This record gives sequence, C-alpha cells and structure tokens, in this order.
Amino acid sequence: MSNQIIERIVALRKQMEEAGIKAVILPRTDAHLSEYISSHWHIVRWLSGFTGSAGTMVVTDKEALLWVDSRYFLQGAQQIEGTGIILMKDGLPDTPSIAEYLCEHLSKGDKVGINGLLMSIDETASLRSRLNACCIGLDVDFDPIDRIWADRPALPSDKIFIHDEKYAGESARSKIARMLADAGAQGANAYFTSALDEIAWVLNIRSNDVPCNPVATSFLYLASQGSTLFVDSAKMTPEVEAYLNDAGVAVAPYDSVLTALAALPVDVKVLLSGSRASGAIAHVLEGRYVKGDSPVALPKAVKNEVQIAGIRNAHLRDGVAMVRSLMEIEKTVADGKPLTEMDVADILLKHRSRGDLYFDLSFESICGFGANGAIVHYTATPESNTAITPGSLLLIDSGANYFDGTTDITRTVAVGTPSADMCHDFTLVMKGHIAIATSIFPEGTRGAQLDALARMPLWKEGKSYLHGTGHGVGHFLNVHEGPQSIRLNDTLAPLTPGMLTSNEPGVYLADRYGIRCENLVLTIPYEETEFGRFYAFETITLCPFDRKLFDLSIMSDSEIEWVDNYHRTVYDRLSPLMDEAERSWLAAATAPLV
Amino acid sequence: MSNQIIERIVALRKQMEEAGIKAVILPRTDAHLSEYISSHWHIVRWLSGFTGSAGTMVVTDKEALLWVDSRYFLQGAQQIEGTGIILMKDGLPDTPSIAEYLCEHLSKGDKVGINGLLMSIDETASLRSRLNACCIGLDVDFDPIDRIWADRPALPSDKIFIHDEKYAGESARSKIARMLADAGAQGANAYFTSALDEIAWVLNIRSNDVPCNPVATSFLYLASQGSTLFVDSAKMTPEVEAYLNDAGVAVAPYDSVLTALAALPVDVKVLLSGSRASGAIAHVLEGRYVKGDSPVALPKAVKNEVQIAGIRNAHLRDGVAMVRSLMEIEKTVADGKPLTEMDVADILLKHRSRGDLYFDLSFESICGFGANGAIVHYTATPESNTAITPGSLLLIDSGANYFDGTTDITRTVAVGTPSADMCHDFTLVMKGHIAIATSIFPEGTRGAQLDALARMPLWKEGKSYLHGTGHGVGHFLNVHEGPQSIRLNDTLAPLTPGMLTSNEPGVYLADRYGIRCENLVLTIPYEETEFGRFYAFETITLCPFDRKLFDLSIMSDSEIEWVDNYHRTVYDRLSPLMDEAERSWLAAATAPLV
Repeated sequence: MSNQIIERIVALRKQMEEAGIKAVILPRTDAHLSEYISSHWHIVRWLSGFTGSAGTMVVTDKEALLWVDSRYFLQGAQQIEGTGIILMKDGLPDTPSIAEYLCEHLSKGDKVGINGLLMSIDETASLRSRLNACCIGLDVDFDPIDRIWADRPALPSDKIFIHDEKYAGESARSKIARMLADAGAQGANAYFTSALDEIAWVLNIRSNDVPCNPVATSFLYLASQGSTLFVDSAKMTPEVEAYLNDAGVAVAPYDSVLTALAALPVDVKVLLSGSRASGAIAHVLEGRYVKGDSPVALPKAVKNEVQIAGIRNAHLRDGVAMVRSLMEIEKTVADGKPLTEMDVADILLKHRSRGDLYFDLSFESICGFGANGAIVHYTATPESNTAITPGSLLLIDSGANYFDGTTDITRTVAVGTPSADMCHDFTLVMKGHIAIATSIFPEGTRGAQLDALARMPLWKEGKSYLHGTGHGVGHFLNVHEGPQSIRLNDTLAPLTPGMLTSNEPGVYLADRYGIRCENLVLTIPYEETEFGRFYAFETITLCPFDRKLFDLSIMSDSEIEWVDNYHRTVYDRLSPLMDEAERSWLAAATAPLV
Repeated sequence: MSNQIIERIVALRKQMEEAGIKAVILPRTDAHLSEYISSHWHIVRWLSGFTGSAGTMVVTDKEALLWVDSRYFLQGAQQIEGTGIILMKDGLPDTPSIAEYLCEHLSKGDKVGINGLLMSIDETASLRSRLNACCIGLDVDFDPIDRIWADRPALPSDKIFIHDEKYAGESARSKIARMLADAGAQGANAYFTSALDEIAWVLNIRSNDVPCNPVATSFLYLASQGSTLFVDSAKMTPEVEAYLNDAGVAVAPYDSVLTALAALPVDVKVLLSGSRASGAIAHVLEGRYVKGDSPVALPKAVKNEVQIAGIRNAHLRDGVAMVRSLMEIEKTVADGKPLTEMDVADILLKHRSRGDLYFDLSFESICGFGANGAIVHYTATPESNTAITPGSLLLIDSGANYFDGTTDITRTVAVGTPSADMCHDFTLVMKGHIAIATSIFPEGTRGAQLDALARMPLWKEGKSYLHGTGHGVGHFLNVHEGPQSIRLNDTLAPLTPGMLTSNEPGVYLADRYGIRCENLVLTIPYEETEFGRFYAFETITLCPFDRKLFDLSIMSDSEIEWVDNYHRTVYDRLSPLMDEAERSWLAAATAPLV
C-alpha cells in the first residue's frame, strides 16, 4: 500500500508543477461540504490511506502532511506509516495551523491550490487573508484528482425518490415559498444551497448517495422566477421529474451548476450561507450574492406535528428492535455462546431492518466492549473485533433511518456482574443525563447554557468527557444536524419547541471501559408565567437503561423517581408491540429501582 | 426644571448649527469609558434630568431623545416629563437602534457629531459603518458642552495617594514590565489605557475621583523608553511624583494627552483595547496602533497571594460590620422604634466605617423593603424612603472599599414572620446560590457555562431573574470588573484561580418583594486527574443567611449541610472579633438548620 500512496503523491506533484502550484490543500469533504461522503469524494483516503472521518491533507513540492484531531492521533499515525506522510496533531500547542505551516515553508509569490468547492466561503476568505498576509497566492480552481485517480468511483447514481408529504408534513412548494420569503428578508431574491440535507428537506426528496445519509447528490437554486435542481440525469425518474416540475423546480445537469450560476442576470441577489456554501459558488456569483443565514437550518430543525408523530412512531419500532437486540445479546452470553462486537452490530441490524418503514441505519453502529468502549469513535473492524465475555461493559451506539423518523440511541450494558466502579461511573453519567432531561428553561436559552448540568456530577469527581452533550437530529435525514446543540462552546441557536436533540453524556476510562447514555429529547412548551415562556424536554427514545448499573447510594429520590417513571413509560409504550417472552423480559428490565 | 432643560437643548442646537452638525450622540460615560462617573461628566443628567446609571441621549435639529434599558423605562419617563424629550425603550422589538433612527430621520450628506473620547474604538467603527451605509457622516471631534454648561463641575482634584505594596503585592515597576511583555507578544511596543481602574492597578495609585471608585482621573502611556501619566497637576503631591519617577513614569498635563500621542514617532506601535480605548485615541494614533486585548484585564482579575490574604482580612471586618448592622436592624424593629430604608443604609455605613483600613463604600447601599426590594437597581430617595415594619422582606446589597480589599454582599432578611411563599422563593434562590458555590469545573470553563446552575431551581417553577449571576470584583478598586462573569451571555474569559467573582442569584416579584443572596467566591485549584485540572470556588464573604427563610422541605441533605458548614465557618471566623452579646446573637444566627 505505501508504495502506491507514494506513487499517487508523485503523480499529484506532477500536476501541481504543471499548474505552477507549490502546495495543495485537500479537505476530507465533498462539493456539498458534507460530514459523511460518498466513495467518489474519498480523496484523502485514496491519497494517504487514512480512513478517519475528519482530517486535511496538504501536499507541497517537498512534503506531504496530514492534519488530524486528537481522536485520530493514534489511528492516523498507524495508517500512514511507511508513506513518508507527516502527521500533524491538530490542537496541540506546538502544531502550526495549515496557513501557518504554508507561510513558513513556502516563499513569497508562491501559489497554493484548492478545489474551491471543498471549502466554505468563510474558510476560504480566512485562508486567503492569512496566505496573502505572507504574500502567498490562492488558486481556488485547482482540481487535478480526476486526472491522477484512474479508477475513481463515479458519483452516486441511485434513483431519487419522493419523501411522501404524509411523512414530511409540508409540501415542497410551501417550503420553497417560506425559504424565499426568508431570503427576501435578508435582502436577497434567490437562495442557493449545496447542502445535501437542506436540498432533501426542501424538496421532500431522498436517495441513497452517502452511507447512512439518505440524500441525493445535487445543488439547488431557488428563485420565484423559477428554481433549478442540478442533478445527474441517471438519478432521475419520470415520476420525480414530474413531481419537481409540479413544485416549480426544473432539472439541469449536475456539472452545469457553476456555468448556470455564472450566467444569472446582474440584478439577481442570491443568498448564500458563509459556512455551508463553498468559496467556488461565491466566486462565480461575485457581486450577485448576499452572505447571510441559511433559511433552511431553523425550519428543518423545528419539526412539524406530522414529523413529530412520525418520530414517536419510529421510536416505538426502534425501541422494540433495541429490546429484542439486548435480549438476544444477554441470552447469547448467558448461554456461553461466542459473541463479538461485530455480531452485536449484526443483531441490531437484523432486528431494526425487520421493522416497518425501515430504510437504512442512520450511522454505522458503534459496539465497543471493555477498553474498546473507551475509544469514543470506535468502530469494530475484523482486526479489533473483540469477544464479549462477562466482566466488563458493552457500549452500543446505534440508530436507523425510518421513513417517518431518524433514531440515535446509546445504551451501556453490564456483561456479567459489574464492578462497583462501573456502577458508580454509570450513575454519574445518568445523573447528568437526568439533569438535562428534567431541565426547564426560558425562551431563548441556548444549549451551551445547559451543557454543564450534564457534566457537573462527573466534574465533581475530577472526570469529564470531551464530546458534546447533544446534537440536533434530522427527520429521515442526517443524524447530525444544526443549528442547535448542547456543548461546551456556544452556538447561538436557541432551543426551540419542535427541535429534536440528543442527550448523551458519557465517561471514558482509557484501557478500562466507556459509558454513554443517550436518548433523544424533543423541546416542548412547558408554561407561561409573568417571567415569560418556559420550555422543557420530552424524552422520545424508548429503551430501558441497565438496572444492574445504578448505584442508588449516590442518587437523589427525584433521580430514582425519574428512572422509574421513564421505565414505566418504556414498558407502557413498547409492551403492546411485543410477544409474551419479550414482555416479561421488559417488565423485569423496567421494574422500579428500589 | 423642564424649562431649564429646554433652554439647554436650545443652546446645544445652536452649537450644532454653527458646526454643521445635524445630530449629536451623548453617551452617559466619561473620557475613560467608566461605568461610574464624576459630576463633571454628568452631561446626560444635566441635559435631560435623567439620573439613571445607563442611557444615551440623541439631539437632532428637530428632536431630543433618550435611549434607556428596561431598568429605566419607568424612571426615565418620570424624569423627562415636560421636557419634550422622547423616551426610547431600548431592547423592545419596535425601538430602532440609534443608528437606525438617525438613518431614518436624517438626510444623505448630513453629519452626526460625537465627542470621540466617549465611545470605544469598536463602537465608533460600528456606528460609522452603519451611518456611512446610509450616506451620513460622523464627526468624532464635536464637544460643545463646555461652551453651553456655564457652571459645569471641574474635573476631580483630590490628591492621588500610593496604594502600598504591602496591600497590592506587586510593584508598579513589575506590573509595567509584565504589561509591556504582553503588548510585545501582541505585536506592539507600547500600551495606552484610559481605563481608570487599569491605571490605578498598574501604578498602585488611588484617589477619590468617582463616588465609591477609588480611582484617579488620568491617562497612562507605557513604553520601555519611558512611560507617562497624563494627570491634572492639582492631583499630584511631591511624594507621588517621586514615587512615579522611581517607577519610570513621567507626569504630563491631563489635557495634553491627545497632542502627546499625536507627536509619537512613526515607528511606535501602541496596543489599544477595542472595547476600553476610545475612538478619539485610535484616531490620533492612526497607523501607529495595534488593536488587541488589554494586557491589564486578566492580571488585574487574578489576585496574588498578598491581595488574597488582604481580601480575607477585609471580609472579616466587613462580616463583623454586617452582623452588627443586622443586629441593630433586628433590635430596632423588635423595640418598635421607627426605621426606614435610609436608616438602614446609615447603620451599615456607621458599622463599616468604624472598621480598620476602611476607605469608602464600594457602591451606594441598596436597601429595599417589601415591593421596593423587587426593583433591581433601587436606591432609596427621600421620596421613596419606606418604613420597615414586620411582614415583609428587606433586601440589603452593600459593600466597602478597604485598603486591603473590596466587599460586595447581599442579604435578604425577614422582618417579622415570613410567609410560606417568601420562604419558598428564598430557598429556590439559595439552591441556585449553593449550586454555584459547590461547582467544580475543568480549566477553561467560562462563567456562562455555570450560569444556568444558579437559575434552574427558579426556572423549574417558571421564575427567573434578568441580571447576571456574577461579576468580577476589584481589589480596593471598582466593585465591577472583568474579564470574567457568570451570566447568560458568553464572555470568553475562563474562570481562573485567583479571580474574585460574585455569586448572586435572586428573584423579584413585582409589587411584592425581592430576594437576592450574594457572596463573593474565589476561584481556587481543586484537583488534577487524568482528565486535567479542576477548579472550585471558595466562598469568601462571611455573614449568616436568615435562618427563618429556609424551607427545608425543598432542600436536599447536601444543601442543608452546605448552609450549616458555611454558618459554622462564619461563626468560627467572626466570633473571636466580637463581644459577648454579638457572639451569642451570631451563635443563634448560625445554629444548624435542623
């Protein structure tokens, strides 16, 4: 492999030399700035061997480097061994930023190249100004990958299908009108988006282009004079084409997007999001765009009544699948039969995929046993796959996309008898989980204000976790979405009724075990008083927490009561959907803690 | 009064007309952008009659307007009645910003005037760009007040005195070197500050220029080639002049500051804070300044060991004064003798001023009885002064400047027997207070992350308070200082060991009563684990909370334990400083809750 990598880098350098480019920056994303990407866009993986979900490669005429964050310090180093690529540990005090590195290693007058579609407007502007400060130029039109990657996978060509309004709750026509009204309020008369989840939501279309993300690779231009979806004709069907025409949306070839935008009349003012639209788009629209907020982000996050009903139903089916999976895992271990982390993922898939309206997983299942559970972004591979035997904790983070909603749940279960430490740590995590679940907060409250409630029980014992406490969840769409979140750093979007957000504190003890407890919560109105409007969270996910892991000695009465009430709800909602054996397992699993 | 006001506005308009200015903006601050100001700078009060602590006046050729925030909607309207001035309620959706108002009411090509010393660099830049967007000019050199305010009070002329290093813990020379090193790291070779608390801290000097703020009106220029304090010669003594020379600081006339800065050589790079230096300063330094962070803010906030020892000692004396005051208040009411809010302020002053090292109050005492306690920024006036009689709550927020530290404490006490509602609300506030006091948090945590801990018990019952939970406190200096705070909106300064911050949740029921419980807390190291460094708060203020007001039925065991432990500490520290009668009162006041 490493020889192949070296040859590929040599080929890239040849392209750079011909174009007069001294360094190229290759972010791990696609032309839609997606978090999850199709194989066509796995340029970093192809050029370095690194398979992580985040990282940026830089190739200069002399060196090749890979910037990764702390999650990938170990994996990155292993995967690039022997290639000569240098690992740059992002976030460490001694690691320069990419711009700093380039300023130090290139000469005045040199040129850096990027594919302008792979970097947002804001990032491009910031990179450009840093490079210009040390007299280095930026060429945003350098895209030599097709020429050197002979067997590069094609763009996805799965057919687009319509996401029925009986699930979406609002027609594409109505959404388009709302988006254009918002664009108008921001001083624009059109809106352009390359974000695949935005396009899927606005048009009520889905496809299967990115693993676990039911999106259709495309660009969308909205204007009252007429809207256009730029999409590969292979992905279209006569039905979808008629449907789109009906909604006032014409279809044009995917790769005609830049020329079509360039040809727009001079009086058009296209709204672009600085963080979600790419620099290349802004470049062709120079003088004809307004930088503002995406009009899609908030309406997409605030689910309507039809979506909320669907989400509740999807969680019934998902809860049943989870209970069946937990039963099967428990029985397999109890019977002394072999069971590995990958087997657990298969069990989850089996039970989920049998449910009504199932489409796909919403992300690759994370099943980490023992020390593997302490690796936050662990996915079992044939090499790491570990046998599950009594004596430690099994962390299972999984979810599915159903036509009526998306799920994301984490349970940590004791295999065999848990130690006192395990119970203690699990209970600290649950105390944080309950503090979020029972929060009441005034209109305008942002997730960052609540985040410490989830962490304080751990902080009081000198423990913590570095990931966020909560992320937004799409509706039959991406499992991670904005604009809200519950995390250490502030995001300015207030928690608004209708938003679906995860509640997932955890703790990870290196080489020992990992714990995470995750439910999805819906923001709902609570009460209105002389002090204003107050909101609450309603927990939507339905699945028992492992009763063996609660340390009652550090729980308050109201915390115990919360668990018992939650478990009663789980039993009441799920048991009617189960057979006798399942019902009796669930009754035991949801019995009062005391 | 209102005729006088009208005449003054007419006189101002004459000046505007002569200078070709269509509108003037008059912020309520001084040339040092202070929160508290000397009488010389009370331009808004003189020109409008409005006495509030925040507000901005705008006079155009046709209208005069006063922007105030919600604290002053009522008071502002009352005080400007009959003057023709229009009250603009800041923060309401229908109220335009000043820039929006001017854009709407002035014509293209018109000019707005301000005294550039009264607005920060950032505010000036933002105002200019908003006005320029509608083709209105900004003249930052319009200051006609001296010409129309015949009996304008002079600048303060109290003598400066040296704040002994035995209290300050670090010499001026050492601080200057540290500040210049920080300026160097920010790409500058000098630092200029007009912030009076910064100057007092850096040079270890104090004066008596602003009520309750022991600062000296001056500007400070620091450079390794030589530093200069711009100050009125009337404020100097030979001793202070010799002391400053010794620290490498020359003295120049206060009003020579702008010409002196203008005359600096071209190769000087002066660091300026965008929020604390004024636009006028940046204007004269054009091309010779770097906008960055104040190098003073963080070192001033992080108290050294000598300051911390002094702060602890000051709180012993302040605690004794508070206990003596509470005893006297209780006895006066019990004896059926008349007592008003203003009497309470006098009692506090009497006991505080008898303490060692007492200099002045740190702010005007707030004593609000019954419904007056629900007015957050209430100060009793002869008109509002209310008799204190059994049946409601008395809120007392007060503090002092001692040579060894500054105090700020709020206690809410029941006069007579409190109602169940009063006890319930008081206990909700205390639950929030205790949640902050017992917080443990990792290095890097910002106050905004902890704020909701103080509010959640109230939020859960649909109640809240609109002020911050905590502000930084100076050392024998301003009672409000940055950069840290504990509030809804994020401030980026992490809570760092050595910072002194208030912990003051409250709740205010209009027309009924107000509750606030305030101690000062010191950030201290707590422990270091595999997850990093953790910090805690140590409560520094020493004074009992009113035991009559605790509703034990809604308190957890650990909350009750916190109150009992705190009360035990109060007794142990204060009782040795008291006579027999005081000790026995304190023993009862600090007895265990159960």
